[in-house]
Amino acid sequence: MRKIKLTVEYDGTDYAGWQLQPNAPTVQGELERALQRVTGAHCRVIGSGRTDAGVHAEGQVAHFRTESRIPVERLPLALNYYLPDDIAVRAAEDVGDGFHARKSALAKTYRYRMHLSPLRSPLRARYCLQVRREVDAALMQRAAALLVGRHDFAAFAGETWRYRSTIRNVTRSDLGAVGDELHFVIEADGFLYNMVRAIVGTLIELGAGRFGLDEFGRLLTGMPRGVFGYTAPPQGLCLVRVVYAPER
Amino acid sequence: MRKIKLTVEYDGTDYAGWQLQPNAPTVQGELERALQRVTGAHCRVIGSGRTDAGVHAEGQVAHFRTESRIPVERLPLALNYYLPDDIAVRAAEDVGDGFHARKSALAKTYRYRMHLSPLRSPLRARYCLQVRREVDAALMQRAAALLVGRHDFAAFAGETWRYRSTIRNVTRSDLGAVGDELHFVIEADGFLYNMVRAIVGTLIELGAGRFGLDEFGRLLTGMPRGVFGYTAPPQGLCLVRVVYAPER
Repeated sequence: MRKIKLTVEYDGTDYAGWQLQPNAPTVQGELERALQRVTGAHCRVIGSGRTDAGVHAEGQVAHFRTESRIPVERLPLALNYYLPDDIAVRAAEDVGDGFHARKSALAKTYRYRMHLSPLRSPLRARYCLQVRREVDAALMQRAAALLVGRHDFAAFAGETWRYRSTIRNVTRSDLGAVGDELHFVIEADGFLYNMVRAIVGTLIELGAGRFGLDEFGRLLTGMPRGVFGYTAPPQGLCLVRVVYAPER
Repeated sequence: MRKIKLTVEYDGTDYAGWQLQPNAPTVQGELERALQRVTGAHCRVIGSGRTDAGVHAEGQVAHFRTESRIPVERLPLALNYYLPDDIAVRAAEDVGDGFHARKSALAKTYRYRMHLSPLRSPLRARYCLQVRREVDAALMQRAAALLVGRHDFAAFAGETWRYRSTIRNVTRSDLGAVGDELHFVIEADGFLYNMVRAIVGTLIELGAGRFGLDEFGRLLTGMPRGVFGYTAPPQGLCLVRVVYAPER
């Protein structure tokens, strides 16, 4: 039995998220359907983690097991033939039996795009949150930098009861201007449910002057977010990459 | 009677192009519908020129006349409220009666995005042509540079019988790498029907080794394109801006 790692890009707009659901289109479901066509057998696909409805990915990672002997270098084109236009496999490689897309992941990077304008931009509407209010980008940048390190991110999570621990280690957290957009890029060893979108919503509220940097910093002590932030919508979010240790 | 100039952005994917058609959604049609809602009267919208089905615009320009006394600075938000998500007015200004969106245009700039990869990229599929073949980008760049100047572009036009002259003055023609994409940017005093897409299709054929730079150069003498190029598909094309003389 082989184990194969896939790197997958998708436009999440028309999907109910990554994870298989009985009556809704999902990325996992489309991948399993394409794999069945290519390998001739049902393959359970395991992703590095779920992405929510409407969230995009440049580099989602998944694995599956198969008896198929198809050369791994032919797999991306073969799968892309059967996949819908908004999902594509960008890379495939044989991996050892110890590899697990979720459990072996060392870190993930997400990017959230904000378009700063009172007026809509149709060419970016699928991939950006439009921020109509004036925001203090320099203040938001300073707040973003505070996230680096080991912190209790309970304030930025929904469904905290799911987790044994809400402490995560953030290794990168930058907010930078790209033309008339702000791009927030965050890398961590793991993310709580809705964590990036909750951080972005809170950064925007901070930038709009709803509260100050001290109050933002206090959110990193495990206190509830309460009135401070909202959860930013999905379309600005993209899973950029998942990092694994080199195989030995 | 006022005359107002609009700058319009749109994702052309779901439209049968700019120009009004009886039984198909068009950008002009949607603008006229929104203007009727905002001004209370039918307004004929005149664009700087047509864009084809599936072609996008960051900065299409149009004008219309109205008796409405709505402050011009309120017009973009008011129109965007009624426009579909894939069309938005980005700017509006009162202009003198001498202004005409098509006749006053001095130059237009188009950009065509090519994504060089054997594998599809779903996040760029709406806005790029995927080029699967190996192409010689440096050769294509040299060919693109040959287009600058006054030339007979009959070889790069469909429906040449429409035109009194097929001579146009190209003031910029660059092909550059942006990550794994090639961006072709061309500015001219006017464009023939399908001219940019025909140039791009021909540049790709050249880059793939179908013919040489000498043969490409000979196309600029008014000879028919014949076997050399094909017309690249619309989704990679975007009308970036239209240039007008400052009003006196």
